[in-house]
Amino acid sequence: MYSFKNDYSEGAHPQILSALMETNLEQENGYGEDRFSQEAIEQLKQRLGRTDLDIHLLTGGTQTNLIAISAFLRPHEAAIAANTGHIATHETGAIEAVGHKVVTIETADGKLTAQHIHTVLEAHTDEHMVKPKLVYISNSTEIGSIYKKQELEQLREVCDKNHLILFMDGARLGSALCSYENDLELSDLPSLVDAFYIGGTKNGALIGEALVIGKESLKEDFRYHMKQKGALLAKGRLLGIQFLELFRSNLFFELAAHANTMADIMRKGISEADIPFLIHSPSNQLFPILPNDLITELQKDYAFLIWEKIDSDHSAIRLVTSWATKEEAVLAFVQDVKRTVVKPVAQHLKNV
Amino acid sequence: MYSFKNDYSEGAHPQILSALMETNLEQENGYGEDRFSQEAIEQLKQRLGRTDLDIHLLTGGTQTNLIAISAFLRPHEAAIAANTGHIATHETGAIEAVGHKVVTIETADGKLTAQHIHTVLEAHTDEHMVKPKLVYISNSTEIGSIYKKQELEQLREVCDKNHLILFMDGARLGSALCSYENDLELSDLPSLVDAFYIGGTKNGALIGEALVIGKESLKEDFRYHMKQKGALLAKGRLLGIQFLELFRSNLFFELAAHANTMADIMRKGISEADIPFLIHSPSNQLFPILPNDLITELQKDYAFLIWEKIDSDHSAIRLVTSWATKEEAVLAFVQDVKRTVVKPVAQHLKNV
Amino acid sequence: MYSFKNDYSEGAHPQILSALMETNLEQENGYGEDRFSQEAIEQLKQRLGRTDLDIHLLTGGTQTNLIAISAFLRPHEAAIAANTGHIATHETGAIEAVGHKVVTIETADGKLTAQHIHTVLEAHTDEHMVKPKLVYISNSTEIGSIYKKQELEQLREVCDKNHLILFMDGARLGSALCSYENDLELSDLPSLVDAFYIGGTKNGALIGEALVIGKESLKEDFRYHMKQKGALLAKGRLLGIQFLELFRSNLFFELAAHANTMADIMRKGISEADIPFLIHSPSNQLFPILPNDLITELQKDYAFLIWEKIDSDHSAIRLVTSWATKEEAVLAFVQDVKRTVVKPVAQHLKNV
Amino acid sequence: MYSFKNDYSEGAHPQILSALMETNLEQENGYGEDRFSQEAIEQLKQRLGRTDLDIHLLTGGTQTNLIAISAFLRPHEAAIAANTGHIATHETGAIEAVGHKVVTIETADGKLTAQHIHTVLEAHTDEHMVKPKLVYISNSTEIGSIYKKQELEQLREVCDKNHLILFMDGARLGSALCSYENDLELSDLPSLVDAFYIGGTKNGALIGEALVIGKESLKEDFRYHMKQKGALLAKGRLLGIQFLELFRSNLFFELAAHANTMADIMRKGISEADIPFLIHSPSNQLFPILPNDLITELQKDYAFLIWEKIDSDHSAIRLVTSWATKEEAVLAFVQDVKRTVVKPVAQHLKNV
Repeated sequence: MYSFKNDYSEGAHPQILSALMETNLEQENGYGEDRFSQEAIEQLKQRLGRTDLDIHLLTGGTQTNLIAISAFLRPHEAAIAANTGHIATHETGAIEAVGHKVVTIETADGKLTAQHIHTVLEAHTDEHMVKPKLVYISNSTEIGSIYKKQELEQLREVCDKNHLILFMDGARLGSALCSYENDLELSDLPSLVDAFYIGGTKNGALIGEALVIGKESLKEDFRYHMKQKGALLAKGRLLGIQFLELFRSNLFFELAAHANTMADIMRKGISEADIPFLIHSPSNQLFPILPNDLITELQKDYAFLIWEKIDSDHSAIRLVTSWATKEEAVLAFVQDVKRTVVKPVAQHLKNV
Repeated sequence: MYSFKNDYSEGAHPQILSALMETNLEQENGYGEDRFSQEAIEQLKQRLGRTDLDIHLLTGGTQTNLIAISAFLRPHEAAIAANTGHIATHETGAIEAVGHKVVTIETADGKLTAQHIHTVLEAHTDEHMVKPKLVYISNSTEIGSIYKKQELEQLREVCDKNHLILFMDGARLGSALCSYENDLELSDLPSLVDAFYIGGTKNGALIGEALVIGKESLKEDFRYHMKQKGALLAKGRLLGIQFLELFRSNLFFELAAHANTMADIMRKGISEADIPFLIHSPSNQLFPILPNDLITELQKDYAFLIWEKIDSDHSAIRLVTSWATKEEAVLAFVQDVKRTVVKPVAQHLKNV
Repeated sequence: MYSFKNDYSEGAHPQILSALMETNLEQENGYGEDRFSQEAIEQLKQRLGRTDLDIHLLTGGTQTNLIAISAFLRPHEAAIAANTGHIATHETGAIEAVGHKVVTIETADGKLTAQHIHTVLEAHTDEHMVKPKLVYISNSTEIGSIYKKQELEQLREVCDKNHLILFMDGARLGSALCSYENDLELSDLPSLVDAFYIGGTKNGALIGEALVIGKESLKEDFRYHMKQKGALLAKGRLLGIQFLELFRSNLFFELAAHANTMADIMRKGISEADIPFLIHSPSNQLFPILPNDLITELQKDYAFLIWEKIDSDHSAIRLVTSWATKEEAVLAFVQDVKRTVVKPVAQHLKNV
Repeated sequence: MYSFKNDYSEGAHPQILSALMETNLEQENGYGEDRFSQEAIEQLKQRLGRTDLDIHLLTGGTQTNLIAISAFLRPHEAAIAANTGHIATHETGAIEAVGHKVVTIETADGKLTAQHIHTVLEAHTDEHMVKPKLVYISNSTEIGSIYKKQELEQLREVCDKNHLILFMDGARLGSALCSYENDLELSDLPSLVDAFYIGGTKNGALIGEALVIGKESLKEDFRYHMKQKGALLAKGRLLGIQFLELFRSNLFFELAAHANTMADIMRKGISEADIPFLIHSPSNQLFPILPNDLITELQKDYAFLIWEKIDSDHSAIRLVTSWATKEEAVLAFVQDVKRTVVKPVAQHLKNV
């Protein structure tokens, strides 16, 4: 049984574990004031090409989203998100629990556009409604789509004109930046969005997201918010060591590229079997629409999520690849799909 | 420079890192539904001698406190804590941020008594004041003191009579249970308190606290609260593997015993130099009152916290030992204290 | 200029002001423990035919909604509402500000059905999503529709089966119960819903909503929540005196009946001019779709809300009647509509 | 039985009720956008001598405190208050419920000094603790003391130097400003504090507090916060009409002066009976220390609060006067005190 259920089925890249081992007995300050965290942050600033950024290391996506949004917004202000946005659906009301409404927009591809923002702003006119103030986007999105540079520039513009904060959830940023369709550099982000994070958990770390705050007014006292929400790890070194390892070399990008390559093989193979996809997703998540029979067959050897019922005979499934996905597993899966899909046809020919 | 600043200066016990290495590429479910977490929880239940406990693995003390208290209380209910309690002073208002007042009590030794609880209850009489509902205690306390069995039984009684929840912060539970003055067993706790946690972070883990909920009415839907507050790790295995390692053998207790032994050496040595202590603390934290000159001298070789100014010439410092504290460091510290303290006397003798 | 903008343009029914005058100098207890409030509550219990109800007097709808929902739900639980529900759109995120998500459902008529509830429950399956726990309905709804007895019985059933709380916003309950289509008695409500309120502000009082809690488990400590949210008036008598006056006689129903009669005249008159309505609303709110020219013409003499753009030439407007609406104003409005609509036709005939 | 329990035992000053009557059927906008509220606000600005103030009308003290503090602070920031401060003790955790810690200071007289603020600031040094940001004071205080101009100037200075917000709870501001010891003008306040409110409820109104915000950065979007917390009354005219009436003439000051005069008579009379006071309170609250026998005797004819047990034979009681307190009641009370106190002495003489 091989699992394509998600990109956090395994532990961490071995290089990260080695680094934890090697530094284990060095005495360091707690709460992120250790030298590893400090160095990781300096290193990230260099990668991002700016020294005026505040960077904080946190443990997971929901935690990062709720702390950032709680720190950035006043009580009457709301976030705007796609209805597929992680904060809108899969965080158990984390944003509401810190007091803020999430105004959602139906989208086909999980991405927000400048037009979406206009529509929301026009519908929120006075103090009887929340004040939309922060635009939450994910790259790659929860359904595998990615933002192009021009799309972000357009969002940037509408946010600037309307004094909105543009915030990017980068839990799967690695996969987005390494997509064959991507035209963004990591270093483009600080000027395109006000804050974003670089996801480690889903790209080879044990835990860890690096939140980057570029907008000056959002920086003040951020560590207070981290502590208040239980996110300031006593052994903050755990986060620092991991990000140091991911960005000391190009490991972060290499791991994401591997995940994407594995997805590309599956995408190509599944397409060759004339199987359609629910969503165009040029990253490490795929949503093929399969006959239910085939799904049952595949479930004998592979674990994956049934995403959505399409009709009485077909369902979309979700396949996720990661830094740890084995090429042999991917190839086997494609082969099994092809065999199973083609078989009925072959049998049909014999019968003739 | 050797640090006695805290019990989280180093990484994890090597056995834990080895376990992370060995299991690294096994594919497992996310969000704490992995086999390691499940096994760790089963193991803890056996240690605790009860199968009817709910156990959840979280990353740190503040996080555990805020989630438990938020899950346990209704909006108008308050926690009672010693004024030295971690939730009262060092969590940046985490409990207030989830909506609850912390009613504090001045204590000499950081411990709450049944009488304290009575005093608070008598002062809170109607709906114009919060309703005290949860008693928060720490064992060992933030200032190193520990609870005896009889003290907990008395608290248990007053809580039962007044429908209060008794909650124990066990960030340093290991050190408490391994103190030379302790008369509690780990397995006593589920019947003495309604919920408590077993601290891993300060006793050899990278991160991790195991929250044990015994009271039936507090169990429902607890994982929802964990997710909402950003505490459900995608790679929950990280927590499971660590607790599995800590409790598979007696590692948890051995590590705490080591920390205490190191503290015992220091306590004895410092006492022999006729140096008084601010607080009676039979655990891994010591608060000797030193002449400021000696403090300055010691700071050249050792890192520690200045805890409190006593008079113009003396201050209390805090010394913390851990699973990783080296005996040679402890012995050297004692020797340096004795030499420095004795020196003036010797010099004085010479001058005579 | 006569206003049909809302049902709170005037002060209170004169009988209420007289009662305030007459009792003004009697000394009474504060915070709702005055004899007027106590008597009003007793009176309401008699009207409702049950002595086991908890009744609290509050000042307004948003306040009542947020306190009730905050008191009734645990942090991870959510409310279900129609997308037109007051808590979903016009309370500036009041429910989110006390920590709860509002899960919304698109409806044509502003009413929730058992099927809607099923759909929501099926979509919320685990701890990564909020737990829907309270069904919020309004009667009459924000767009003037009303619930029939059978519809409430069906909601009651689905709520019982799924351990959901059924909560009715009755800001305009008077108009609903006095609608020509209504088949509910006030005394039916305590068994049909778990909690509801009787709106005074929009039915002749200066301020005031009477919250009725029937479900035992929702009653405990409710006054704490009122105080905490700033709703316990020092001069609670202000609320008691008003409800005493509204229910001592049938004043409450007479005022609602008057508002409805005024709406009935308008509905009939507008229909006679062959003008369609956006929504079927058998209560004191009407949403006719008018040519924009006519709207401009009517705005010279009447104030009302432009509700929604229909096409380039037509918009729906909102007309609201109240206990204070003058019959002459209503008749004049109808006459003006008829004249303006018919005029072009007449002119057209002349031209022939 | 005459009550000195509080200053909200009666309804409103008759002039206010008359104004409600007279304007009752005028149609006006809802939610505070009526002409009465607008005029009342303009009038207050003139009284305060500044046009650059934002003024909002709310219903009660707890509501005003929680909305102001919630709107003014970010999540990690805390309020500083005397331990007798209303927000610290008698608001059921309202401030904590909107997420903020109240850091309390023990005081003898209920007043904060610059030195108190320094002490708190020195104790809050880093992100592990809340960040004190707002200084909450009451004038008159909850125990009847008042602030002198110089004391406010000193607080102003320490707040300016440390970027703190100075907020004054004026639920009993009328009594403070009309005290025989007062040296403040109403118009001094906008420059001395950043925000304050003028209490109507305890000075002749049915309900109503006028919040005055002078500091520019605190003004933005305040009405959103009012709506979100359920404080925007549909019939906002109710508040506007009352404040219009209180400040159109000098009614507000006349009512407060009457309350104070009644208290002065009691203070003088009680002093003449050689009865000591718990607190020096030059306003409308008195705290005489009486023999328990006398208290029992007085309770037959008068209602008042037992404030605090002093010793086995004596208790302090609280006497509150108001705009509605009758001089004959005050005189009778004094006479009864004098007679009862003197009687034992007379009897003793007889016995000799």
